[in-house]
Amino acid sequence: MSGASPTVCLITDFGTEDPYVGQVKGVVSQLCGDINIIDLFHGVPKYNAKALAYLLPNLVQTFTSGTVFLCVVDPGVGSERPASVLEVDGRWFVGPGNGIFELLSRRSKKQSRWWEIVWSPPHLSASFHGRDLFAPIASFLAIGGNPEDEGRCKRKKGTESHYAHWPDDLAEIVYIDTFSNAIIGYRWKFIAESWRIIIGGHDLARGRTFSDLPPGTPFCYENSMGLLEIAMNQGRAAEFLNLFVGSSITFQDTV
Amino acid sequence: MSGASPTVCLITDFGTEDPYVGQVKGVVSQLCGDINIIDLFHGVPKYNAKALAYLLPNLVQTFTSGTVFLCVVDPGVGSERPASVLEVDGRWFVGPGNGIFELLSRRSKKQSRWWEIVWSPPHLSASFHGRDLFAPIASFLAIGGNPEDEGRCKRKKGTESHYAHWPDDLAEIVYIDTFSNAIIGYRWKFIAESWRIIIGGHDLARGRTFSDLPPGTPFCYENSMGLLEIAMNQGRAAEFLNLFVGSSITFQDTV
Amino acid sequence: MSGASPTVCLITDFGTEDPYVGQVKGVVSQLCGDINIIDLFHGVPKYNAKALAYLLPNLVQTFTSGTVFLCVVDPGVGSERPASVLEVDGRWFVGPGNGIFELLSRRSKKQSRWWEIVWSPPHLSASFHGRDLFAPIASFLAIGGNPEDEGRCKRKKGTESHYAHWPDDLAEIVYIDTFSNAIIGYRWKFIAESWRIIIGGHDLARGRTFSDLPPGTPFCYENSMGLLEIAMNQGRAAEFLNLFVGSSITFQDTV
Repeated sequence: MSGASPTVCLITDFGTEDPYVGQVKGVVSQLCGDINIIDLFHGVPKYNAKALAYLLPNLVQTFTSGTVFLCVVDPGVGSERPASVLEVDGRWFVGPGNGIFELLSRRSKKQSRWWEIVWSPPHLSASFHGRDLFAPIASFLAIGGNPEDEGRCKRKKGTESHYAHWPDDLAEIVYIDTFSNAIIGYRWKFIAESWRIIIGGHDLARGRTFSDLPPGTPFCYENSMGLLEIAMNQGRAAEFLNLFVGSSITFQDTV
Repeated sequence: MSGASPTVCLITDFGTEDPYVGQVKGVVSQLCGDINIIDLFHGVPKYNAKALAYLLPNLVQTFTSGTVFLCVVDPGVGSERPASVLEVDGRWFVGPGNGIFELLSRRSKKQSRWWEIVWSPPHLSASFHGRDLFAPIASFLAIGGNPEDEGRCKRKKGTESHYAHWPDDLAEIVYIDTFSNAIIGYRWKFIAESWRIIIGGHDLARGRTFSDLPPGTPFCYENSMGLLEIAMNQGRAAEFLNLFVGSSITFQDTV
Repeated sequence: MSGASPTVCLITDFGTEDPYVGQVKGVVSQLCGDINIIDLFHGVPKYNAKALAYLLPNLVQTFTSGTVFLCVVDPGVGSERPASVLEVDGRWFVGPGNGIFELLSRRSKKQSRWWEIVWSPPHLSASFHGRDLFAPIASFLAIGGNPEDEGRCKRKKGTESHYAHWPDDLAEIVYIDTFSNAIIGYRWKFIAESWRIIIGGHDLARGRTFSDLPPGTPFCYENSMGLLEIAMNQGRAAEFLNLFVGSSITFQDTV
């Protein structure tokens, strides 16, 4: 039971209707030949690099060493943000250096390694670096290349970070899924049992699974990624509570 | 012209925006190596196991022996419903035992075979059995494993069914597609020519294809899966007739 | 860095929610075995063959020789439109002969070659030629078959066209993406620097990339496919300007 072909996982805010994901796949497929390309997640809130930063570590935790993640949430495409490659616990991450890799790097077991992409393709469009810049680099890593080969990338010391002020866990909604469950950027294991979990004046019950609570009662639980999530048995929690990406959660210690 | 790699088809109510399909694919891809993973259908009406039950046999009929179908519409995840494996005419079906496989089993040419999954993964999340339980089992079958190997599954006699009272064909809308065509859970071949087909007071004409009727006239036809469908030439039938998943069709014999 | 498996790219107006794309993939996968199937674009405006005609050449330009494109936007399915195969600069195109290949053919470097599909499958549904007719032909081409093998297709002289009156570039919106950017069927390189670009009374500024203009100002730029596009930095241009697929652009020469 082992993967013969390399794997590239795509994580973007492109959605699945537009042709952009397909164009990225075309590049990867043409450069890599036989490869597993997995659409891991294209519903990242658009332009919201911070939301992805807090989802990413929990989203990729089941993937093995060697996997390449091509991540594009890029409000500043065409401007000054660097183009980055990151190696974290044996997995590769390629995308804009706009904070999306901050928590991933900070939480890595071993020291993560950073590079800046200095290579430029013969044709670099102003608005689609996912296709023109990041896809070729991700493809090169997927077939076993080293980021520094032929001067593609330049190693960074990577101790300074523009995003060091971001908290270790974020008490805000970072995603609302199509079931209307609201995912918080806060790891469940860091929420004390004595804490009340409050949003918009609602004091939320806790459950282990959906059927633990009666229909119509919003509740909190540890979701399948290990994050705090607000849901409702047979209901639509985020709509019921009028929640949005960015809404804040309050924790109150009852001790 | 034959498939070298095994094929796993995914059928869920997850939609395509959320990261859940991608996470399931990640597991299958890591366990199977080179494999065809086909997103067959992720738009099953959410939580609606009965709707899928009547779509499934017609959806999978063009797939060959050996294909593995990973099916997840699971309103009761985390509760008591069994985890099932089914073999029907050489194809494998893995998913919750909540009725989604009822019509498939009932209509199979040979006696279908049922197993209950008794294996449990090292980490089983409370809410995402698709990723943690069904995907590993489906992967194992795809690479040629037998459900009973290493005690993964326990054979069931499978003559009793909690869903025996469900009719052989369902005179209700089970899906409305993005063209606003309404699909009924009723096989066209069992609709007599003498029957009037009525919904919401509308007596529907019959056609063979869209251009058989003038624009603006809703009509019935045998869809590409062999099911009764309500459509409209250059129009949006379900919106025009105010139809929803669950709306009932009436047949009236004119003889 | 070369592709071992053949590649079939899918371009349709099916969207990604319905089971239709998955059914097409099932056929291709079963006929081809190991193959790269790429969902290039399923969001073509529904039934809008002309919109696809002007998007297609720019959408496929980065794909190499040998790629097979299965294209389905088919308002006339079941009626008289021919079923077509087209070879353009070493790439294959399979789909309805309803104008979708007009601009592709007209702009090809070498003379494009046309065939009409005369083969018919054992079971041809009235409404789903994408699955029943075009997918088997595309699969056959992908594994190296010649369109005329076993009488599948008949060569057409291909000098006459029902769509010869369509302009070389179309001054209309052909697609609005999920970022609310509006794509025009007009190649940027044919827009003179002296032209004013006007839509709905708005005289649009030009930029190279999104951050060139202040937030809230709609502007025009050359998009990543080489087409004219209307966008807005951190905003939703098409919503702001109330634009739709089909809205006309006016060019006014200021010289």
